[in-house]
Amino acid sequence: MTTEHVVLDKHAQDLLFREARTANTFTDEPVSDEQIEAIYDLVKWAPTSFNQQPLRVVLVRSPEARARLVPLMWDNNQEKTKNAPLVAILAADTEFHQHLPTQFPVFPQAKDVFFSDDAVREESARFNAALQVGYFILGIRAIGLAAGPMTGFDFDGVNKEFFAEGTHRALAVVNIGKPGPGAWYDRLPRLAYDQVFRTV
Amino acid sequence: MTTEHVVLDKHAQDLLFREARTANTFTDEPVSDEQIEAIYDLVKWAPTSFNQQPLRVVLVRSPEARARLVPLMWDNNQEKTKNAPLVAILAADTEFHQHLPTQFPVFPQAKDVFFSDDAVREESARFNAALQVGYFILGIRAIGLAAGPMTGFDFDGVNKEFFAEGTHRALAVVNIGKPGPGAWYDRLPRLAYDQVFRTV
Repeated sequence: MTTEHVVLDKHAQDLLFREARTANTFTDEPVSDEQIEAIYDLVKWAPTSFNQQPLRVVLVRSPEARARLVPLMWDNNQEKTKNAPLVAILAADTEFHQHLPTQFPVFPQAKDVFFSDDAVREESARFNAALQVGYFILGIRAIGLAAGPMTGFDFDGVNKEFFAEGTHRALAVVNIGKPGPGAWYDRLPRLAYDQVFRTV
Repeated sequence: MTTEHVVLDKHAQDLLFREARTANTFTDEPVSDEQIEAIYDLVKWAPTSFNQQPLRVVLVRSPEARARLVPLMWDNNQEKTKNAPLVAILAADTEFHQHLPTQFPVFPQAKDVFFSDDAVREESARFNAALQVGYFILGIRAIGLAAGPMTGFDFDGVNKEFFAEGTHRALAVVNIGKPGPGAWYDRLPRLAYDQVFRTV
């Protein structure tokens, strides 16, 4: 009924939303840096407040780094994090404002006028990096890979282990690759329109 | 160089990411409920932790409600919020866990096991609703409209005025419509890949 309004073609709708699913297993096929660059080259254009772009990504490629990450995942996430071809840690940089003079040149003072307060800056970093986590998940799908985003892990532990400078807040760990055997659970339901939207 | 990796067709890349821009003016053409339903019918499929779907949306349609919202926007956002064909307030529902028994039937106990703590629940609601704000912005573009997302407003004021029950946290106000004359500012720069990604 409502699809007549959608301008995005059906293939793209399916690829990004309707047919895309969170993958729980992956094949051994590696994920290259060039593929990750292609994702970023696409999703970097999506908007953030004041163009602040607080998302930072750690690509966990060495066996040694993987061995530090896996025990920080909840039990049910350890096996898939151990085996995914590539694992990315997505975090908010609470020092994003250092980049505003170059990234928001129309009002370079924004760095100090709006973001000198630590609590305000952290909340803004978390919100805008979360927007970018969403864009990144869709970007993984856009290049024909599957994402396995997870928030079941020890956030403080990951922050200490991978962001020792103390200025980042891990938000999600995302497994990336081609879906393997039995990758999908059953599709879960979604809230009805009237449970989400109201008009005033 | 990197576009060879992208499976999403070029029209869709441009519509959602490369050519899409934040609109600052709009035409008078109305935005219907059917268009908003079409957006939701697409973006509802994108993932959230535990399928929690905490995003709630208030569509500001009456002149009376618009008159309550506009003074809560920062000065530079008032005029466009006054004139956009449709304005939506996007918020996180901190009581999302009430829906988990139906929305996450594989582990209905999640409601109590993981989300009985208010602070944990609020942080999870804010993160996952922010993911959904990102999906929603892309969904507006997917049906051929332009989005004007804003975080420059009095959050406490909007929470009191539009979510009197005290269980929601406004995250963004989004103007929606067809772009009008002079809708676009110059494209702002983006951080380089190496400023965002590192490998361990």
